Amino acid sequence: MKFVYERQVFYYETDQMGIVHHSNYIRWFEEARTYLLEQIGIPYAEMEKEGILIPVLEVSSEYRHPVRFGDVFCVELFCSRFNGIRWTFEYNVYNKATGELCNTGNSSHCFLKRDMRPFNMKKAYPGMYEKLMKAMEG
Amino acid sequence: MKFVYERQVFYYETDQMGIVHHSNYIRWFEEARTYLLEQIGIPYAEMEKEGILIPVLEVSSEYRHPVRFGDVFCVELFCSRFNGIRWTFEYNVYNKATGELCNTGNSSHCFLKRDMRPFNMKKAYPGMYEKLMKAMEG
Amino acid sequence: MKFVYERQVFYYETDQMGIVHHSNYIRWFEEARTYLLEQIGIPYAEMEKEGILIPVLEVSSEYRHPVRFGDVFCVELFCSRFNGIRWTFEYNVYNKATGELCNTGNSSHCFLKRDMRPFNMKKAYPGMYEKLMKAMEG
Amino acid sequence: MKFVYERQVFYYETDQMGIVHHSNYIRWFEEARTYLLEQIGIPYAEMEKEGILIPVLEVSSEYRHPVRFGDVFCVELFCSRFNGIRWTFEYNVYNKATGELCNTGNSSHCFLKRDMRPFNMKKAYPGMYEKLMKAMEG
Repeated sequence: MKFVYERQVFYYETDQMGIVHHSNYIRWFEEARTYLLEQIGIPYAEMEKEGILIPVLEVSSEYRHPVRFGDVFCVELFCSRFNGIRWTFEYNVYNKATGELCNTGNSSHCFLKRDMRPFNMKKAYPGMYEKLMKAMEG
Repeated sequence: MKFVYERQVFYYETDQMGIVHHSNYIRWFEEARTYLLEQIGIPYAEMEKEGILIPVLEVSSEYRHPVRFGDVFCVELFCSRFNGIRWTFEYNVYNKATGELCNTGNSSHCFLKRDMRPFNMKKAYPGMYEKLMKAMEG
Repeated sequence: MKFVYERQVFYYETDQMGIVHHSNYIRWFEEARTYLLEQIGIPYAEMEKEGILIPVLEVSSEYRHPVRFGDVFCVELFCSRFNGIRWTFEYNVYNKATGELCNTGNSSHCFLKRDMRPFNMKKAYPGMYEKLMKAMEG
Repeated sequence: MKFVYERQVFYYETDQMGIVHHSNYIRWFEEARTYLLEQIGIPYAEMEKEGILIPVLEVSSEYRHPVRFGDVFCVELFCSRFNGIRWTFEYNVYNKATGELCNTGNSSHCFLKRDMRPFNMKKAYPGMYEKLMKAMEG
């Protein structure tokens, strides 16, 4: 299943090069994941209240064309792996007006309890696992 | 007692106006408070481990001259009020090289327990209160 | 005229107190101003392309109730003064779900040319001045 | 040549997981590069004044152990490639107190003129090229 998250660039996301600072794309990936979880009916805020943390293990980002203040960007988000232990995503960031591919990236995650110990979602939360699996395959 | 905190501007603190984004001065005030607490021997990280939170109730900032990437800034920090319930600070931000006064600000704070309930430090932590009072008057 | 800007809290806007970090409200005020300019048909990105900068001269913010990840916030935005030289705003930040008033603030601005020299919009851009005046009074 | 940049974690760099938000490591890498350029006598602020931009083409980061507020971190920085057209770095982030390796990363960069056109530093700025080459090999 493919999700598309979009919004405008904020002024404070620019730097003196006159473009969006590169660190913000990493934040946009997070915004897109949050959007995905909300879309499939398992808001991350509620997962954390249940004691589930989904930290980032790895992230990478390739910058092809700058995004600027005044632009609307779209983050296309694909799940490339989900097995209840690891979760990986791929991202394509487009300039909405021009369709230009501006950035590609990926991230990998695990599932932790509040005490920072990893767990297998399939065993610990089978209902949530099924819901996520279905959405990721969809 | 007067404290002076200083560091260089980071590139990611600039915006496309070519100057430090105004929101960062609010963060510099926080850095300066953290430095103050460390200087007087009560690091804020340890206060939080004890269950003491010092949230911001009010903050204001007046922008006189821009600070830019490449500049070193100094935050002069004064305590204008401390009584164990409220804590207020005044800030002057200087350009270190030119001595120019770039920003003035102030902030006000209270003391909360982890459960977000306010408390009187004089009663709850008399030793810490004395230490802070002494440093604030010094 | 009253404008209302709203969006969800981003995860990266929280701090370890478990609430939105106070510096982000200053950024939300900016987002709300950008939204206002877009709504009245003078996007700030286009103003900057024309060589008009609208820096912040003063900002203040009062924190009444925390906003948290999972919340949607609304920034109610009023223009309290506009004369082509100065522009001031007042902000009320609400929790959309509860209606609770979480933050109030204000900011003041001037108009600068790219070379950082102030100008009077009424004289330099009478058409833009009329459009802004009408929207501010509306 | 190996460079080591260090500083304390700022409170606003934490998130509600109680650890430094993952996007900040990308910013720390930038701080470390700025430090490196300053150490070798070619401050990046001065390069930009000359019209030289060094944007990020790629960045990646692997998160091994969290860094927290109260920690001092060290960024060990190696240049893995420099030829006047491309510049790549590797980063190791340590917890200074424990020596624990918390994060590894890398980034790749090119050299652009103000008009966003790439150039070969060896041809355009032979003196600067020699200085950088010497420092990178050193």
